[in-house]
Amino acid sequence: MAGAAGTDQKVAKHESNSGTEFGAEKNGKKFNKDDVGDENLAAYIFGIDDLRLRPYKLPPVGKKDVKVTIKAVGICGSDVAYVKHLQVGNYVVKEPMVIGHECAGVVEEIGSEVKDLAVGDRVALEPGVPCWDCSLCKQGLYNLCPDMKFFATPPVQGALAKQVVHPAGMCFKLPENVTLEEGAMCEPLSVAVHTCNRSNVGPATRVLVIGGGAIGLVTLLCAKAFGSLQVVVADTHNERLSVAKALGADAVVLISKKDEDMERELKEIQDAMGAPIDVTCDCVGTRKSLTTALEATRSAGRVCLVGMRESNMDLPIAAAAAREVDLVGVFRYRHTYPLCLDLISSGRVNVKPLITNRFHFSQQEVKDAFKTSAEGKGAIKVMFDL
Amino acid sequence: MAGAAGTDQKVAKHESNSGTEFGAEKNGKKFNKDDVGDENLAAYIFGIDDLRLRPYKLPPVGKKDVKVTIKAVGICGSDVAYVKHLQVGNYVVKEPMVIGHECAGVVEEIGSEVKDLAVGDRVALEPGVPCWDCSLCKQGLYNLCPDMKFFATPPVQGALAKQVVHPAGMCFKLPENVTLEEGAMCEPLSVAVHTCNRSNVGPATRVLVIGGGAIGLVTLLCAKAFGSLQVVVADTHNERLSVAKALGADAVVLISKKDEDMERELKEIQDAMGAPIDVTCDCVGTRKSLTTALEATRSAGRVCLVGMRESNMDLPIAAAAAREVDLVGVFRYRHTYPLCLDLISSGRVNVKPLITNRFHFSQQEVKDAFKTSAEGKGAIKVMFDL
Amino acid sequence: MAGAAGTDQKVAKHESNSGTEFGAEKNGKKFNKDDVGDENLAAYIFGIDDLRLRPYKLPPVGKKDVKVTIKAVGICGSDVAYVKHLQVGNYVVKEPMVIGHECAGVVEEIGSEVKDLAVGDRVALEPGVPCWDCSLCKQGLYNLCPDMKFFATPPVQGALAKQVVHPAGMCFKLPENVTLEEGAMCEPLSVAVHTCNRSNVGPATRVLVIGGGAIGLVTLLCAKAFGSLQVVVADTHNERLSVAKALGADAVVLISKKDEDMERELKEIQDAMGAPIDVTCDCVGTRKSLTTALEATRSAGRVCLVGMRESNMDLPIAAAAAREVDLVGVFRYRHTYPLCLDLISSGRVNVKPLITNRFHFSQQEVKDAFKTSAEGKGAIKVMFDL
Amino acid sequence: MAGAAGTDQKVAKHESNSGTEFGAEKNGKKFNKDDVGDENLAAYIFGIDDLRLRPYKLPPVGKKDVKVTIKAVGICGSDVAYVKHLQVGNYVVKEPMVIGHECAGVVEEIGSEVKDLAVGDRVALEPGVPCWDCSLCKQGLYNLCPDMKFFATPPVQGALAKQVVHPAGMCFKLPENVTLEEGAMCEPLSVAVHTCNRSNVGPATRVLVIGGGAIGLVTLLCAKAFGSLQVVVADTHNERLSVAKALGADAVVLISKKDEDMERELKEIQDAMGAPIDVTCDCVGTRKSLTTALEATRSAGRVCLVGMRESNMDLPIAAAAAREVDLVGVFRYRHTYPLCLDLISSGRVNVKPLITNRFHFSQQEVKDAFKTSAEGKGAIKVMFDL
Repeated sequence: MAGAAGTDQKVAKHESNSGTEFGAEKNGKKFNKDDVGDENLAAYIFGIDDLRLRPYKLPPVGKKDVKVTIKAVGICGSDVAYVKHLQVGNYVVKEPMVIGHECAGVVEEIGSEVKDLAVGDRVALEPGVPCWDCSLCKQGLYNLCPDMKFFATPPVQGALAKQVVHPAGMCFKLPENVTLEEGAMCEPLSVAVHTCNRSNVGPATRVLVIGGGAIGLVTLLCAKAFGSLQVVVADTHNERLSVAKALGADAVVLISKKDEDMERELKEIQDAMGAPIDVTCDCVGTRKSLTTALEATRSAGRVCLVGMRESNMDLPIAAAAAREVDLVGVFRYRHTYPLCLDLISSGRVNVKPLITNRFHFSQQEVKDAFKTSAEGKGAIKVMFDL
Repeated sequence: MAGAAGTDQKVAKHESNSGTEFGAEKNGKKFNKDDVGDENLAAYIFGIDDLRLRPYKLPPVGKKDVKVTIKAVGICGSDVAYVKHLQVGNYVVKEPMVIGHECAGVVEEIGSEVKDLAVGDRVALEPGVPCWDCSLCKQGLYNLCPDMKFFATPPVQGALAKQVVHPAGMCFKLPENVTLEEGAMCEPLSVAVHTCNRSNVGPATRVLVIGGGAIGLVTLLCAKAFGSLQVVVADTHNERLSVAKALGADAVVLISKKDEDMERELKEIQDAMGAPIDVTCDCVGTRKSLTTALEATRSAGRVCLVGMRESNMDLPIAAAAAREVDLVGVFRYRHTYPLCLDLISSGRVNVKPLITNRFHFSQQEVKDAFKTSAEGKGAIKVMFDL
Repeated sequence: MAGAAGTDQKVAKHESNSGTEFGAEKNGKKFNKDDVGDENLAAYIFGIDDLRLRPYKLPPVGKKDVKVTIKAVGICGSDVAYVKHLQVGNYVVKEPMVIGHECAGVVEEIGSEVKDLAVGDRVALEPGVPCWDCSLCKQGLYNLCPDMKFFATPPVQGALAKQVVHPAGMCFKLPENVTLEEGAMCEPLSVAVHTCNRSNVGPATRVLVIGGGAIGLVTLLCAKAFGSLQVVVADTHNERLSVAKALGADAVVLISKKDEDMERELKEIQDAMGAPIDVTCDCVGTRKSLTTALEATRSAGRVCLVGMRESNMDLPIAAAAAREVDLVGVFRYRHTYPLCLDLISSGRVNVKPLITNRFHFSQQEVKDAFKTSAEGKGAIKVMFDL
Repeated sequence: MAGAAGTDQKVAKHESNSGTEFGAEKNGKKFNKDDVGDENLAAYIFGIDDLRLRPYKLPPVGKKDVKVTIKAVGICGSDVAYVKHLQVGNYVVKEPMVIGHECAGVVEEIGSEVKDLAVGDRVALEPGVPCWDCSLCKQGLYNLCPDMKFFATPPVQGALAKQVVHPAGMCFKLPENVTLEEGAMCEPLSVAVHTCNRSNVGPATRVLVIGGGAIGLVTLLCAKAFGSLQVVVADTHNERLSVAKALGADAVVLISKKDEDMERELKEIQDAMGAPIDVTCDCVGTRKSLTTALEATRSAGRVCLVGMRESNMDLPIAAAAAREVDLVGVFRYRHTYPLCLDLISSGRVNVKPLITNRFHFSQQEVKDAFKTSAEGKGAIKVMFDL
């Protein structure tokens, strides 16, 4: 769920309306019985750095729903943020919440009106369920639906669970040659696809990607698949740049977090490209990264804000606007799963090298997995194997 | 030339390469003889607040050029800025420069290959001459041409002169019912047309215009002509809001320059619209105005930065990006003159009420006109009648 | 439902799967009891030119549905075609079908999850209900959904009934100053809005509308509301041209159905416009009308095929393609109702003059209304007042 | 110059205004001395199948021009058509005309204002010189400029000559690893690039290419470079399909010229794709090919008419329009050369396998080369080596 941090500053705070006091169990009380059951087991956030496996009561399988046995779940930066801060942007965890939204599994049961899926199908789950009634949904901009229900975004429960119930229309059958882990990777890859769509990446564009984390790397892969002539990746860590190079970056540039280096780095980046930079994808989202993006990009080019580490930024916006450099943001994605599966299945995008660490679904390993993901140290994508 | 102030922070400084020392005449020396002649008279900037009528030597009329006797010239904010500061963005006046770029006149002479114009034709002059060779020109984005030669943008001479020579392709014949003053108004109106184009203003958009100066007002008129459902204008002066109301604003909102009023003003603006704001045109360009723009605009909407009073701004950019509110800038305009003439000729846009003050082309009146324009006080557009 | 005739030549034939033999009642048998009830009365097609009022059993009101008492229903060309031929394109009436799809009414009952509507609200009903699950729906192209259920398109029942049940998300509350008849007019107006959207009609376009029937006339009104500089209407009947002129056409041209007149008419049309024709909306859809459209439109312009009277046409397509005149079709509309209501409510579009004939909902008047609509003779829109 | 045949049916006939009687030399007279000189040698069309090397007088090198020694010239279908019929569309050869427009060479001399090129530079020449003054040019649609001067399009002389004079802005420096022959191949490749641009080919599109000649094959290569998920090529010749397969087509389908095979072929094509066809590029341009294109393409897809073998075609246009399948044409290209050079230089497109036959620039070999090109028989691109 990159393209999401800090997203909701202007959205009214989402608060759960349950009577259950958050962290109740800590105080010796059990949390609300309606929320749990013995049908299932899921990884709940109970407090800061407090993840526990507890029973999870599945909702009934509606006419157009499927019940899915989850097989692979990746950890995203926003998952880590919830575990560490109980908050991402305006979304605040107020009661025990199942974590996890990058997932794939096997269909266990189908609703009475489900036609395109069958029991036993392997599927990737698009984690957000929009209303389909509002103006944005009707225009196809459903990622911006104000009534979106998205896995592990309070008060909606997540998917790091043995089973979940999900609308069939948001479950995408995996081609035979796509693994369940690759299915789970469709989620971060979707952010990259949406980024490339929003940035107009194509065969005539040279792309600068700032940030070589998981999202920066899938953006690199995706820009290449979109035909980009040249992709340069800039990051503050040499190890990440090595990975970017190995994954196909045409050039990489080491940058710092210091303002005084900006002018020199800008020149290094432009020299590394050796041609005007048409599009910059800022997968970091700080004042420095976005300033670099705005200044590096050619007149009439595009800057796409994907990472959103800082909320407010002091930016040289007039100069960029006067060169008609457009600044567009990315919030999750829309209608990207079919393309993700095609890209992976055809081999145009290979996400496997990004999966660096694997864990099982036990109390201890869940804790270890989040610790590994939070620490970084070479971990790009941490994946659960359920 | 709104949509231009502060534009060029990142452009290498444009310096004149003439040997003539700027302000030379002040020091008792004549300035370079090559630049002047007795064929013509023009209003030169000689120094801060120092405007003088002096002879101007016309360049030869090339094959595709026309010589035009100038009849009407409007004063733009950037003209005033040059007179007051000798600088706009990175453009610095380094030697005597003829001011003025909003102009219309009568064709006096045509080059040998000019087919579409005849002596005696009344024309509006589009002030910028791009190279037509670079990639941006070839794509139709000629306003962003790095080799643009634009009236009264150093080191290019302006058009507040008895006569100028200009490419025929940049001179647009006035329909019979369009006056020469209206012809000169095509220049600011072009900024509004380009703003509406860049903002995707159309019959399904509700538009907030921040700033009720000349550019804000033409943007209001233009948004209406583009079919906008509703236009709300916000400004810090009640008199300007009265004008906006008289010109057709559906509602107006008085705002302040104080940060602490922002939240309340935002609510007032949204209440005045009574529906989601699809597009905001910021014709002011300060941190406060642009913050208001970003926060007022609905998800998937657009903010267009037209005014650029401040260079750097501390903005709540992450929240806007996460709602996929696009931020686009406006630099002058491209391919707008034919539409401007159509809009004026058909009566869809009436620019006449904007022309509040008129002056003749004499040493004294030139000074007075610029003083009037600089002071504001009810003056919207100050126009020379030559 | 203009923009629909002849649409489905390539779509598999839609046949009802009911065991009820069509026209059963004629043979002395009652039709299927499940389909009727005494809750309601509706106008069924029983055979060619055989319309009967019969009881209609309403489906249950689902959680997100509303029950609406229908107050106004307009007759569309496709309704007449079903009554006269029992077929439009590949859609064949195989059993008694309630006719009518242009409708508005008053909310009588709301489902348990309906939030935005209340009993007593006056609403316009968008007649098509897409699946929201397919790729086209998710992209916002829901009018092309292969599983669309659309009023009075076999085997889906129509809306010329005392009451219908419809999804709340497809019912749009009428502003206070919009009448129920105007609400019903949102349906044909939607075709015009979609036509203008697909044709890129805007303030810089001059539009030729071929065909001055109901759809041609709403297209004229709509193009004006979209800011079109000039609209010329061509038709084979002088009375229709008079109406077009009265409704705001800048010029009208009488054309014939004869090929030999085409070249001369083309010149008359271009002379009437007096400038390049940017967009042509062909609301007729014959070889001659579309040939005229393709040849009349300027290079890089657009032709929009709205009417579809003939299936196959012999066209000068190479010449048009070589001038990059794009040919785009219109099938119904998508996401147009909110704009239609805004256009009507704000007075930008006045559909009232188009409602030329009114009938009550009785056995006799239903027959008379369809006869009036089929005969033409000055009838533009025939409306039922229930 | 594919995307051009038959283009000009509606354009006024272009006739040369020279007094020189065409074929004059045949009658024992020399043709106009002004047109020739001993500076140069060029291949003129003197009549049907009558090509002669004769001296060619170069125009003076203007300020912004370069003189280029031509090194490589490819033969295009339109060149062959001029040699065989003295006519393409409305363009008629009325006096001796130098043939050839796909060319590259070495800069021999530069005009006084040429900055970006130097003597000795290897360049590809974009053959068309637009006016840059008209509305279409200013919008970047310069390929549709009514005053276009295009090599070997009467009355403009072509480029199969030892030297030509051309605007520097239309000469593109070859990267070091791009050969002169590849430079000449930028011309047909430009048609493919423009086709992919006009068709919205991208990573989410599956493309059907009808026609496996030179243009069909570059379209295949280009669609792949644009990231297309899958490209299927259909042609009437098995040899061409073998080449298409070797060049990367995901599948190929043998089709006939017979109508009665259409339905079966349509099914074979759709089966070969195994998924909805988003875009069809018709590089043939007959009633059958375009009908297949319209019917094969999914709802909301796009058909691009590239080849234009037949002028008028009887088409099932209503059904296509009702599924909102857009039909767009291609006329030459605009702003494509930089991308072509990037695609070739980066290895994303390999045009070398398309150059099947090479000839020298002698009287005999010019005749032989055109014969070879006209006969087909495995010849894809015939190239002159000067």
